[in-house]
Amino acid sequence: LPFAIAGKVPRVKDLIVYPHSLYRMSDIELHLETTVEKILPKKKKVLTSKGEFGYDSLIIASGSVPIIPSIPGVEKDRVYTLKGIEDGEKIISSLEDAKDVVVIGAGLIGLEMACAFRKRSFRPKVIEGENRILPSLLDEDMSKELKNHLVQGGIIFHLGSPAKEILGNKNVEGVLAGDEEIRADMVLLACGVKPDVHLAEEAGIELGNLGGIKVNERMQTSLDEIYAAGDCVESLHGLTAESISSMSMLGSTAVREGRVAGINAVGGSATLSPILNTTITELAGIEIGAVGLNSEVGLQSGFEVCSIRFEGSSLDPFFPGSEKIVIKMIGDRRSGKLIGAQIMGKERVWGRILAISFVMQKGITVEELAALETAYVPSISPTFDPITLAAEMLLRRMSQ
Amino acid sequence: LPFAIAGKVPRVKDLIVYPHSLYRMSDIELHLETTVEKILPKKKKVLTSKGEFGYDSLIIASGSVPIIPSIPGVEKDRVYTLKGIEDGEKIISSLEDAKDVVVIGAGLIGLEMACAFRKRSFRPKVIEGENRILPSLLDEDMSKELKNHLVQGGIIFHLGSPAKEILGNKNVEGVLAGDEEIRADMVLLACGVKPDVHLAEEAGIELGNLGGIKVNERMQTSLDEIYAAGDCVESLHGLTAESISSMSMLGSTAVREGRVAGINAVGGSATLSPILNTTITELAGIEIGAVGLNSEVGLQSGFEVCSIRFEGSSLDPFFPGSEKIVIKMIGDRRSGKLIGAQIMGKERVWGRILAISFVMQKGITVEELAALETAYVPSISPTFDPITLAAEMLLRRMSQ
Repeated sequence: LPFAIAGKVPRVKDLIVYPHSLYRMSDIELHLETTVEKILPKKKKVLTSKGEFGYDSLIIASGSVPIIPSIPGVEKDRVYTLKGIEDGEKIISSLEDAKDVVVIGAGLIGLEMACAFRKRSFRPKVIEGENRILPSLLDEDMSKELKNHLVQGGIIFHLGSPAKEILGNKNVEGVLAGDEEIRADMVLLACGVKPDVHLAEEAGIELGNLGGIKVNERMQTSLDEIYAAGDCVESLHGLTAESISSMSMLGSTAVREGRVAGINAVGGSATLSPILNTTITELAGIEIGAVGLNSEVGLQSGFEVCSIRFEGSSLDPFFPGSEKIVIKMIGDRRSGKLIGAQIMGKERVWGRILAISFVMQKGITVEELAALETAYVPSISPTFDPITLAAEMLLRRMSQ
Repeated sequence: LPFAIAGKVPRVKDLIVYPHSLYRMSDIELHLETTVEKILPKKKKVLTSKGEFGYDSLIIASGSVPIIPSIPGVEKDRVYTLKGIEDGEKIISSLEDAKDVVVIGAGLIGLEMACAFRKRSFRPKVIEGENRILPSLLDEDMSKELKNHLVQGGIIFHLGSPAKEILGNKNVEGVLAGDEEIRADMVLLACGVKPDVHLAEEAGIELGNLGGIKVNERMQTSLDEIYAAGDCVESLHGLTAESISSMSMLGSTAVREGRVAGINAVGGSATLSPILNTTITELAGIEIGAVGLNSEVGLQSGFEVCSIRFEGSSLDPFFPGSEKIVIKMIGDRRSGKLIGAQIMGKERVWGRILAISFVMQKGITVEELAALETAYVPSISPTFDPITLAAEMLLRRMSQ
């Protein structure tokens, strides 16, 4: 949706990846505009707005719903959340006569949307209760560096004081954050999402301690023949010492979970490996990638966190067009393992975060990472890749 | 050098990565224009054109020399090889009055140079004895597809008949390949390189069966306190069932070997893991990446080769600017392991080959690869990455 709102994808409708004909071709009966009202696990039936459907096995993929902060004024006109196609369309048409656009929340969606508004020549203001942006993804120094870049790009931040009230009569006139009144005639709530579990809960399916549907590695819920996948489930994190679950809320996790649930639901056998929440995004011409845990979460998860910040060049110095690339690498002194990485730069961030994610999924020590062979050609990557140099730097720090 | 000849790097001299001052700063005594004439291992001395140098430990990094084919005419003026800065300068000045440029050899250097000549508006002709280009890197189908692209880009190929003679009097007038006379007023010999081992051999250092200096994983030669690194050594390949060595001849391998040799030579401890020859290049706007073995070499090395060719999109279909990406994946039926991958496309090839190389260095089955988490954002990578889809396709083929 942010890409459609920025105008990069021509029409919001283009975001529908699979046309109905594909389902027909695949012999899948698709029932649109059919609301599921109740799951009856004992009768193996679902009740819907268009009648009953029996099942042998059932997959719940109810996704998530935006979190609406409990502050006065969220019900006003021109206060939006971002989830479905319709939200995107409403926001686009609302932009036509908007002047002051405020985003509440500096997570991934909040920032992607702020950049989309900027692309459309607004000077969006972002309000975040934490004192830094992308707090659950990035370490403090990386977060600060990204913020500086976005400020230069024309985005205005109000950090450290959560939004307390949306002001105005019927229409929005401003947002109160701390003691400050921030002018607004349109507000986007980007305060995260929470799993949509109401059907599962009513059916007596067990939830996890984060409020998502509890599943095993085969994506089975606590009830026979009922599977679940996507934003509505809790997934096992690949790094936390004990079996700590995490709400991944990433499209890449959802599709992998869906595939595992689908295979098992029809009698096949597949398991989901623990996830690392590999994340990549582009904000105002900068690629930001992250995988594993940031330092803060690493500490909370009981790791002996040791981290470095490496600033290098995307290319060998003789080659024109080299760009700065910044890598944060986080290791665990006890095991010697790499537990997290964050990369930021104008180019070639995605490939590096993908490569680090791949080896982290196999489990890798910082020492092993520093010794790995990389792919060198002057126009793309230096002889000693920044990954190698960052890993060496972290290795030295860890052995001190 | 190809980048300098194409004009992408402004001056050939710019290719010198480390200035002399850096060596002084690091307390390294650098002796340029000093030819080593002999190594005296018993006396722990080297004799040079500028006198004797004693050593406690010695690292041989004598590199490689271009292979000159044994055909008549290679001694003529305007027949070049490509190795040092001087070669680059000679070729550039020779281009000023050249018209018909012929490259002998369709390996990486030959093709990179042909593309460089094309950038300078020549219509280079490439002669190759094998019936395909990049024969040691790519499978036949990938090779053919790349050739078609280069032909469209204006490069002319003469495949299947090796060059038999370089024609002309003092100056080059043509090259005889099979029965065909190919007009030429300048010829580049790009027939590969061979390890420069003359000093090592004279000193009594053991060579491997491929003619390179034999070293162990600490880069030690057969003689005490003598190490070797780079193009002059044989490296252990990470995939061949037994300890089969390989001549890597890649800059990325050389720097890693140099680092291991250096650490051990001063009393530290480092080992080189077996290499996979991860390769990336750019030819006429296409990125080509490869890692591990191609099907042919896989068969020769005793693997039960099973391969697929996957053609996908670099981005999700709704996103503008998606490009074709072709992946060849090669597995071993016996072990289920991935033993090779080749990728070709306009963009985002490097990151994928790096990621595959990273997990192959840890050892990975095709099934594991298909299940790995990838990094998704619509503008960079689809929800199901082409790597995932290719691995799934190979997995199905292998289980048939």
